[in-house]
Amino acid sequence: MKEPRYLILADHDFGIMTSKTANAVIRYHPSRVVAVLDRALVGQTSQQVLGFGGDIPVVGTVAEGLKLGANCVLIGIAPQGGRLPEEWYGWLAEALEHDCDIVSGLHTFLSDDPKLAAIAMQHGRTITDARKAPANLPVATGLAKDVDALVVLTVGTDCNVGKMTAQLQIVSGLKARGVRTNFVATGQTGIMVEGWGTAVDAVVADFIAGATEQIVLRGAKDADVVLVEGQGSINHPGYSGVTLGLLHGACPDAMILCHQPTRDFIGDYRDASWVKIPPLSEYVKMYQAIGGMVHPTKVIGIALNTFDMDDLSARAACEAAARETGLPATDPVRFDPGPLIEAIIKAMGEGR
Amino acid sequence: MKEPRYLILADHDFGIMTSKTANAVIRYHPSRVVAVLDRALVGQTSQQVLGFGGDIPVVGTVAEGLKLGANCVLIGIAPQGGRLPEEWYGWLAEALEHDCDIVSGLHTFLSDDPKLAAIAMQHGRTITDARKAPANLPVATGLAKDVDALVVLTVGTDCNVGKMTAQLQIVSGLKARGVRTNFVATGQTGIMVEGWGTAVDAVVADFIAGATEQIVLRGAKDADVVLVEGQGSINHPGYSGVTLGLLHGACPDAMILCHQPTRDFIGDYRDASWVKIPPLSEYVKMYQAIGGMVHPTKVIGIALNTFDMDDLSARAACEAAARETGLPATDPVRFDPGPLIEAIIKAMGEGR
Repeated sequence: MKEPRYLILADHDFGIMTSKTANAVIRYHPSRVVAVLDRALVGQTSQQVLGFGGDIPVVGTVAEGLKLGANCVLIGIAPQGGRLPEEWYGWLAEALEHDCDIVSGLHTFLSDDPKLAAIAMQHGRTITDARKAPANLPVATGLAKDVDALVVLTVGTDCNVGKMTAQLQIVSGLKARGVRTNFVATGQTGIMVEGWGTAVDAVVADFIAGATEQIVLRGAKDADVVLVEGQGSINHPGYSGVTLGLLHGACPDAMILCHQPTRDFIGDYRDASWVKIPPLSEYVKMYQAIGGMVHPTKVIGIALNTFDMDDLSARAACEAAARETGLPATDPVRFDPGPLIEAIIKAMGEGR
Repeated sequence: MKEPRYLILADHDFGIMTSKTANAVIRYHPSRVVAVLDRALVGQTSQQVLGFGGDIPVVGTVAEGLKLGANCVLIGIAPQGGRLPEEWYGWLAEALEHDCDIVSGLHTFLSDDPKLAAIAMQHGRTITDARKAPANLPVATGLAKDVDALVVLTVGTDCNVGKMTAQLQIVSGLKARGVRTNFVATGQTGIMVEGWGTAVDAVVADFIAGATEQIVLRGAKDADVVLVEGQGSINHPGYSGVTLGLLHGACPDAMILCHQPTRDFIGDYRDASWVKIPPLSEYVKMYQAIGGMVHPTKVIGIALNTFDMDDLSARAACEAAARETGLPATDPVRFDPGPLIEAIIKAMGEGR
């Protein structure tokens, strides 16, 4: 298989929270990315926009990306509901006509679009929908609770607070300690980074837990620790069903609670100031209570996402979170993921 | 539109809890049912098997149902995962060939089956999949919390404990009091009884709450009270995601907790004795806490399903439930639904 050379489409979104797929692929596989398309930031580099990713340039047209050697277009945004802006279809057609593949994490399956599918066929290109669920998903049977590996799930106070990133930052540290560790991706971005997984928010509702169980079992093979990517939040008015199905399907022995300290309201409803984010200790209590109705579980650490704070405030936020919850707290991207790694190793030792 | 004359397929399941669709259609529309197919109970009547439904006969073949005038075959069981026993496909083909339509609530869409679809087309018949979700579902926006009507959701200690039936038993009582009341169906059986609704367990996971919101808004038009059919249970290892998405999408002002007193474990996992059903008061606390994270809500009554108990035990169970929770408790099928109707009228008066 040829190495992908991505042109990432993140128009009007690069560098802000909704370009989560772009950010993750650049963070964990920068060598695969030749350019990012965002007409509002043309001429800048990924380093300037994100603070990482080095010289990867931002371009304003698909043609420029092709000139830089792109052989695959990756949809780098995750819009609410997962639907694609209309205008982008022209760009995708252009890319296919110039012998690029397409990788997408949208709810709208691009491979089902008759026009795009026809162009792809004509040019021998592939369209991969990372969110397309496997056929014949099971209803959860409870097998995940019996795996030998320690199952660790990230849970959050909202969407897009770093549940995937926290896990990915921990993987290498655990492996360095000799702990056999697998990351289990449950969303389109994690799947693009890891190469396998199931987007549990895209399966038929009755099978959320079953789909999760299936990939946890796969991740638990030959592993001491399984790090399961969490989704949404238990109090997110739109997505809480996915969160709870995932929690009960994964049967985690331990959880890491993820939070962005500057966020006061559930993000998608910020304009309406609808759902205020309660204190961390309330989330700890709720996740343990509702998770524990199916399988005993506890929160063992706090992962903060402090990307929009200065160093001093970020340190203070970690200390405040640790004080409030009595748990180790860190920003595993900005600071040392060590406290979370220690917490996991301690949980392994406790035999659960 | 011609009146449907159903032959209900419930082979090996009629009269037991999994023939939930059969039971509900017979209970609320007995005049539409000409026969039930169950090879294990041939010769009996619905009255003998269910205790209601009068002379509706149980037959052993599709041919007998046709002879009795059936013009539509209705799938009367709801197997775990919603898939159809292989053998039934032959019966369905036979029915289509003899000019019957098909109505199904299974996850496997029968209208997508190439063989059945071809036979249906050849004979000018229709195959209706009640679980097929509408296109372009929204992510929940929170509109349900702002409707003028009092929104009442049934919640449960498990699947199949009477969440739909409790609501249907209350509808006429409320209407008799002059309260404009709409029932909002969220499952295939409710849809078959009511004629509209969305099977929220069959939508893509990200849209559970949005799909619920959409039908609650429709139900709230010109209504004082909206009775929303609940699904699953907050601690059901397979289906809890549906339960929570439905709870947060509906934004109920009040909840009625449904329970079958003889059940000790979550039903689908009874063999493994996995998830023990905790006391009712724990469910009350949990549903209020997790529902309240999005919209203030409280449990206002308990609906028990005592179909497998004698009268004395059933009365005692209602009294025990009322004592434990401090709430009105009744079996709205066996006894008087009045206490639940009173509780709803009281909640309306409190202006929430």
